[in-house]
Amino acid sequence: MNFSIIRRTLGWLLLFEGIFFHLPLITAAIYWEAEFFTFLICIGICAALGGLCFIKKPKNTSIFAKEGFVIVALSWIVISLIGALPFVLSGAIPSYVDALFETVSGFTTTGATILNGGQIDGMAKSLLMWRSFTHWVGGMGVLVLIMAFLPLSGARNMHMMKAESPGPVVGKIVPKVKQTAIILYAIYAGMTIIQLIMLLCGGVPLFEAVTTSFATAGTGGFFANSQGVAGYNLYVQIVVTVFMALFSINFNSYYLIGRGKIKDAFNTEVRAFLAIFFTAVALIALDIWLEPMIFSGKFEYEYSLGESIQHAFFYVSSIISTTGFGTVDYTLWPVFSQTILVVLMFIGACAGSTGGGIKVSRIVILSKAGMREVGSLIQPNRVKKITMDHRPVSHEVVRSVTAFFIAYIAVFALSTLLVSFNVGIDSTTNFSAVASTLNNVGPGLSAVGPMGNFSVYNDFSKFVFIFDMLAGRLEIFPMLILFAPTTWKK
Amino acid sequence: MNFSIIRRTLGWLLLFEGIFFHLPLITAAIYWEAEFFTFLICIGICAALGGLCFIKKPKNTSIFAKEGFVIVALSWIVISLIGALPFVLSGAIPSYVDALFETVSGFTTTGATILNGGQIDGMAKSLLMWRSFTHWVGGMGVLVLIMAFLPLSGARNMHMMKAESPGPVVGKIVPKVKQTAIILYAIYAGMTIIQLIMLLCGGVPLFEAVTTSFATAGTGGFFANSQGVAGYNLYVQIVVTVFMALFSINFNSYYLIGRGKIKDAFNTEVRAFLAIFFTAVALIALDIWLEPMIFSGKFEYEYSLGESIQHAFFYVSSIISTTGFGTVDYTLWPVFSQTILVVLMFIGACAGSTGGGIKVSRIVILSKAGMREVGSLIQPNRVKKITMDHRPVSHEVVRSVTAFFIAYIAVFALSTLLVSFNVGIDSTTNFSAVASTLNNVGPGLSAVGPMGNFSVYNDFSKFVFIFDMLAGRLEIFPMLILFAPTTWKK
Repeated sequence: MNFSIIRRTLGWLLLFEGIFFHLPLITAAIYWEAEFFTFLICIGICAALGGLCFIKKPKNTSIFAKEGFVIVALSWIVISLIGALPFVLSGAIPSYVDALFETVSGFTTTGATILNGGQIDGMAKSLLMWRSFTHWVGGMGVLVLIMAFLPLSGARNMHMMKAESPGPVVGKIVPKVKQTAIILYAIYAGMTIIQLIMLLCGGVPLFEAVTTSFATAGTGGFFANSQGVAGYNLYVQIVVTVFMALFSINFNSYYLIGRGKIKDAFNTEVRAFLAIFFTAVALIALDIWLEPMIFSGKFEYEYSLGESIQHAFFYVSSIISTTGFGTVDYTLWPVFSQTILVVLMFIGACAGSTGGGIKVSRIVILSKAGMREVGSLIQPNRVKKITMDHRPVSHEVVRSVTAFFIAYIAVFALSTLLVSFNVGIDSTTNFSAVASTLNNVGPGLSAVGPMGNFSVYNDFSKFVFIFDMLAGRLEIFPMLILFAPTTWKK
Repeated sequence: MNFSIIRRTLGWLLLFEGIFFHLPLITAAIYWEAEFFTFLICIGICAALGGLCFIKKPKNTSIFAKEGFVIVALSWIVISLIGALPFVLSGAIPSYVDALFETVSGFTTTGATILNGGQIDGMAKSLLMWRSFTHWVGGMGVLVLIMAFLPLSGARNMHMMKAESPGPVVGKIVPKVKQTAIILYAIYAGMTIIQLIMLLCGGVPLFEAVTTSFATAGTGGFFANSQGVAGYNLYVQIVVTVFMALFSINFNSYYLIGRGKIKDAFNTEVRAFLAIFFTAVALIALDIWLEPMIFSGKFEYEYSLGESIQHAFFYVSSIISTTGFGTVDYTLWPVFSQTILVVLMFIGACAGSTGGGIKVSRIVILSKAGMREVGSLIQPNRVKKITMDHRPVSHEVVRSVTAFFIAYIAVFALSTLLVSFNVGIDSTTNFSAVASTLNNVGPGLSAVGPMGNFSVYNDFSKFVFIFDMLAGRLEIFPMLILFAPTTWKK
């Protein structure tokens, strides 16, 4: 294990976090908030700790896959540990565990909160800005950002990119990793700005437009007031709905569209994503429209056909993108619609997007692996290779996707077991809370539904969720590797 | 597809079912019940339909893996369709769908029922005998029984054995499949008789001792009265607890013990099973003993340490073996204990036992596949082979186990979605009902807990559960193959 290169990368990370803190610092200055000094202290801490990492020059700059994973896992832990400080130092969230939960939820673009509506409304604007900004930083990945700016070694870039980017295979847009990182961030920033402008056109005040754009772009879900998207007019709700969906599509596709390769952009994964998306919208719209009409008096809502379609679009977009924004309370919907939403949580967005979940491309590969087995039972002598977009999927990718799936289900089951130790919370809440954090969605069902929050859980459970959010964002293995004894051997 | 050989095997199956019907026929004669004539008619139907299958001699006796799977899947469907007739013809269960649910639940050794306590207590003894006997027939497999008696071709035997026997690899005890089938049934019958004698020694009346032994041996769970095991003394409860656990261990191990190979008998799977078993007992015993003491007044039960251990042993044995017998109402237990029980449902028993679930050996292989991936990320150039009991697990087995797992989760998710369409049932009930039927356990949580039953569901949902019970017993693929168009090509 090359510790010196890990230390050096963490140093860069801390310096970057110091830069990130300038956005809430400026916000505090504009709104004349006392939190200005909180963020000043935090910037000082970043500079001091970051500087410490640069005292010794690394003798050996060679890096292997192992170091890539460890750097990524530790980076996300460190950036969250420091990122939680403003909430604690300002007194907005007195408990450090709560603040850490909130920060991890931010960086991992989960959007699960331990704050209730009143606490959010009472929070300083600079803290709310920081809370939403963590979504934007975490969405595309902080190390991807660093490699877009710094002249790091090519090997280090590749290993870090592999570990931080979501999806079964890392699609380099251009041969160079650094160039890829720059293009990805350019698309990301560009789309964020377009959404910002569209929100401003809809009459959303600047502060809320910025925070909402950050949360949508990162598919996070934090909102800067307790009303959420429900407080806006129909135009704004539609803009948010569309952008949540756009940010859950592989960014490579936008690059391909930009280069005129429309057909390549709509690859198997994107087509599967759209098929799932519109099927879910149709089923939910019909279900929430018709069920109260057929079984009148049983449900606490009644929508027109138009409202049904709008709510279905909004929540399918919010959940499959793993954003987790809320308007109406879907826990009052029929169980069928709720179950569809839970299934969407697990499926998640496309690989190479800012969304979470298992990822559509993995679902496609897993389905093909399952169907291949059925085929091989019917014709044992003809075992076909799995293909995707007319190219064979390598044996290693299939193996790593199935291993991911196994590890994912194992983490899911173990987490559900661990949080069930929390007395007085029903099993639907536990199940959906784990599903929501592991898939980086935000809200769940029952007590952690869109109108509830995670403060019902004790600190032990919160640590489980913190692990799950990180494991979900980094796709399990970087977090598991930290626990493998062989990782730490020289 | 060789249809003639499928027809011929189904013919044998029907004749065997006609023989099976003699046990309830005799029961009806002893208790002087009118159902005597019901069973007489059913025997006639079996003879007539079975005879029809023998009119044309098959020209071609060659058989491939595909035919093996189709024979097994169709056999289980046909035996259930006919097996449901006594309930309908006697008027005990007027709805044919309900009767089919009950019969499939019997043969697949699930033990989920649509009957309430009063209906069970009011049922004729001959019908109760048939209901419990289906567990025993389904436990070790009806085709395994047929091949133990008939001189079928070796290839047919092997393919049918592969498709009907639970577990990732079929362990032939001796080189010949027919001999293996005979040995398995000898062990099965022997252990059933030992349990029967031990129950009789505990003062259990003959009828109940026989039906309880059938249900335990098959790890089924139907009970011949509404009181269940709770109505018996401690000695009988302990006997049932121990035998549920014994019937969930690989029968090969008993053969090895009989031949003095004690060390071989306690292979990786058995050791893993015992480790899971005793860990679960310890956790649940502590949980149900301590939680009401710590949070007094919150729970509706209070056990002494001894009672806690006894209940923990009973339910861990009942659930991991996928029997599903009930004593106390575990849905009143803390959520932690309930979650452990749900996890045990999924893990299930050992391969080559009469129990259901994913099977411990598959869990072991899946864990090793997951850990191998972590290892290969740390050291990409050293991908190790998975071994079990010091022998390498072939690539094909690993592939088929992971494919099984994928298909299993897919069937699980799709079933949960389909039954959630049933209005007015909460999601915990839906989730646990699917878990319980797909793993062949019987009871679930909430409305389908040990004190509830499946009559809350509509016919559409019952068909989903019927599919799940069959898919669970036959381990998914034989049921999926029925839906593949290539299966039915000439």
